[in-house]
Amino acid sequence: MKVRVLIRPKPGILDPQGKAIERALPALGFEGIEEVRVGRLVELEADGADLEALCERLLANTLIEDFEIVRFADRTDPA
Amino acid sequence: MKVRVLIRPKPGILDPQGKAIERALPALGFEGIEEVRVGRLVELEADGADLEALCERLLANTLIEDFEIVRFADRTDPA
Repeated sequence: MKVRVLIRPKPGILDPQGKAIERALPALGFEGIEEVRVGRLVELEADGADLEALCERLLANTLIEDFEIVRFADRTDPA
Repeated sequence: MKVRVLIRPKPGILDPQGKAIERALPALGFEGIEEVRVGRLVELEADGADLEALCERLLANTLIEDFEIVRFADRTDPA
């Protein structure tokens, strides 16, 4: 089963990468973009593993990050 | 409009973060997980900006990364 994990900084947690992107936008001519938040994307093939435990123990820092697990039915690429 | 950008290492490009996760799994007791790939997740509010250009020029390194843009109809959190 293909699994996608979305990991984001928790609301209220400072996101320096997002702020850096926001500051770079005007010089590149982009307007109308705000609230940029940068997180991590982890995609994997899982067969029966405890994905919540995987996220809490290895993939995410739950003090400062939230995670969301999206499961896909088969191995075809959902993208 | 809320926008989610998924940025992944291109197929065939070495992904050291993914390999590091795979190597850490057995010691933590996780089995049945493979093909781990780590990318970036960027979420933002966009109003009329050219998102393809934004990804190509700022968010992704298109030499080694693919990107996917997902648009959501309104400001409610799709997660």
